[in-house]
Amino acid sequence: MGYDWISFLTDYGCYDGFVAACHGAMGRVAPAARVLDVTHDVPPGDIRRGAVVLAQAVPYLPAAVHVAVVDPGVGTARLGVALRAPGGVLVGPDNGLLGWAADALGGVEEAVSLTDASYHLSTVMATFHGRDIFAPVAAHVAAGVPIGRLGPAVDPAGLARLPRPLLRVTAGEVAGEVLTLDRYGNVQTSATAADAVAAGFGAGDPVEVVAGGTTYRMPHGTAFGDVPRDRLLSYVDSYGMLAVAVNGGNAGSRLRLMAGDPVTLRTVSP
Amino acid sequence: MGYDWISFLTDYGCYDGFVAACHGAMGRVAPAARVLDVTHDVPPGDIRRGAVVLAQAVPYLPAAVHVAVVDPGVGTARLGVALRAPGGVLVGPDNGLLGWAADALGGVEEAVSLTDASYHLSTVMATFHGRDIFAPVAAHVAAGVPIGRLGPAVDPAGLARLPRPLLRVTAGEVAGEVLTLDRYGNVQTSATAADAVAAGFGAGDPVEVVAGGTTYRMPHGTAFGDVPRDRLLSYVDSYGMLAVAVNGGNAGSRLRLMAGDPVTLRTVSP
Amino acid sequence: MGYDWISFLTDYGCYDGFVAACHGAMGRVAPAARVLDVTHDVPPGDIRRGAVVLAQAVPYLPAAVHVAVVDPGVGTARLGVALRAPGGVLVGPDNGLLGWAADALGGVEEAVSLTDASYHLSTVMATFHGRDIFAPVAAHVAAGVPIGRLGPAVDPAGLARLPRPLLRVTAGEVAGEVLTLDRYGNVQTSATAADAVAAGFGAGDPVEVVAGGTTYRMPHGTAFGDVPRDRLLSYVDSYGMLAVAVNGGNAGSRLRLMAGDPVTLRTVSP
Repeated sequence: MGYDWISFLTDYGCYDGFVAACHGAMGRVAPAARVLDVTHDVPPGDIRRGAVVLAQAVPYLPAAVHVAVVDPGVGTARLGVALRAPGGVLVGPDNGLLGWAADALGGVEEAVSLTDASYHLSTVMATFHGRDIFAPVAAHVAAGVPIGRLGPAVDPAGLARLPRPLLRVTAGEVAGEVLTLDRYGNVQTSATAADAVAAGFGAGDPVEVVAGGTTYRMPHGTAFGDVPRDRLLSYVDSYGMLAVAVNGGNAGSRLRLMAGDPVTLRTVSP
Repeated sequence: MGYDWISFLTDYGCYDGFVAACHGAMGRVAPAARVLDVTHDVPPGDIRRGAVVLAQAVPYLPAAVHVAVVDPGVGTARLGVALRAPGGVLVGPDNGLLGWAADALGGVEEAVSLTDASYHLSTVMATFHGRDIFAPVAAHVAAGVPIGRLGPAVDPAGLARLPRPLLRVTAGEVAGEVLTLDRYGNVQTSATAADAVAAGFGAGDPVEVVAGGTTYRMPHGTAFGDVPRDRLLSYVDSYGMLAVAVNGGNAGSRLRLMAGDPVTLRTVSP
Repeated sequence: MGYDWISFLTDYGCYDGFVAACHGAMGRVAPAARVLDVTHDVPPGDIRRGAVVLAQAVPYLPAAVHVAVVDPGVGTARLGVALRAPGGVLVGPDNGLLGWAADALGGVEEAVSLTDASYHLSTVMATFHGRDIFAPVAAHVAAGVPIGRLGPAVDPAGLARLPRPLLRVTAGEVAGEVLTLDRYGNVQTSATAADAVAAGFGAGDPVEVVAGGTTYRMPHGTAFGDVPRDRLLSYVDSYGMLAVAVNGGNAGSRLRLMAGDPVTLRTVSP
């Protein structure tokens, strides 16, 4: 059994040797496993950002053990967990980080608390469970250890979950929030392509976006090039979410939107 | 046939999961291929910067499929292409990004348009051809698919090309432009070592650099340590291009030069 | 013999193709070796920062050839060296960068100067020994070449060493310096956990930290969560060093400390 791949997401950044120490801890346990870095540039402690990036990445990855560590509570009472889903295994802190990715992988079938120290490094430091617990545990799972051996079962229903993002879909209107912003400043909302269809958005339709009390008019398009350079458009992004972009520019700055801010999109009569 | 290695260059940055999704798409198709990241920090949409970095990297890489995506026109009419050269295969948008690397690999022997959807992901989103087309296509080529199967042939002479950088070499003078700046601020010009020799530059000679109307005097050296700390020198850089640096400092800031700016170097009587 | 792994640390950054060119040079010589990037974000020319990160990473890595390049003197008289230690081989410039890692790997048993050009690229540029000398040499060692073949032996006692960081441990007080700061701003001092014990620091004790003439009171804890959010604590960090952090914040900014600054921690009566 086991997995050929381990994916790895953290808020460790690349300035220090933290990510490398985790890679090393994995390589010592499972030298044959391939480690695929999802990102290490989650803003420090931003659990929701990590949860969004992980959930949107896993559908495109090979079957894998996915280790994710955004863990401001490291060393406190929060559990470390491993979750088995139809599409893979997730390993990390029980703080909501893993939940949306677990949904994307088909839901949690088995969950355990990572208490068996024989799968950890011999010395566990209170401030670096990524290196000392999560990385070696993930490597043991990749090497074939069933998660039931890692510690006692926990009730999946009791796992920490992030609040569901705001979303209200009515005829001609999607009232949601900003789920996240990417490096280009594209604004991804909490509404899916299906929500956009349900609200009556069609390609080429004019729409209004209300953000921070200001209303912006733009077309609902498909590709950035559907509008002239430096102009706004709404569109379904590459993860299937309703989004707002500026062709060649930064929509987050233009609309002064940050993750979690309310944003409403509505169709308008041409 | 096929290739053991895939190299990968984009302007996606490392903040999001974009690069990982592409790695995942490659790993699913060609699990045995090794992926070597060239850089993902090309400034967004800066095709010329991507073209320079790729062209200067490929001579040092193993034989590979080189996937490059700096693609401000994603989802518009521009073609996606695969180019076969004596030294490897290039995959990416037909916007000039691949041309200089193709030259470095020996020139384009065969070019095709990436229209056969059986080598793409089953769903192709208009804003992420890197993940949905280019990455899986590259992995199929690495796994042994000849590029002729990816779509219809296109005439190599009709591929998009970037303008050739300015360069005029005369006795004692090289009048060119800034090809690019690296993270240290070293200024790489459009002139090669051969151009510098043709113009009469010799190690230890005093030279003048004219940039933005100001003339700077410096020696033509070999290593940064040929001048005291914080002093300017001209030299042939590690990619064989005539360049200007500050030992321990940033020549781009010192000379207020950006990519594309004109810059002239000339020998002076000692 | 040889090694399955090569670790790689530089100050090259990820903006250019420099790291990729080195990966390529390694891959051509030792295609089976796994390359584990430690970090490439050492500030340009900051040898001490590179030395600290490398020394703290190697204990967690698999047995490897460790290549490290922070080399402001590239192309000058400084030697390139390979050092054999019980725990692995180190390759890089002889400027102090490798010394603390060599200590961590058990001390230098054999040292050679990298003069045999048959293990370098055929053309060596004066400004990029990472790509042209250190990377291919490391790959040859990984592929089984004993370091004695790389060039003449040098006396380990004559290798460049960085100054030992300041440290004076007395009853109730550790007077040291800031060894380094991580991306979170956690302040790592030059004192070890053993020094802290020798000075009488105990978990939960109140301590004072003197930095830049200001005295800060905080508890000596174990995990960040031992203090409320935004509050200071001292603790033994994940590399076993006495450190100061702000829970959820940046201690370096709070205490206005930079690497090399003096810092004193002392126990106080509750």
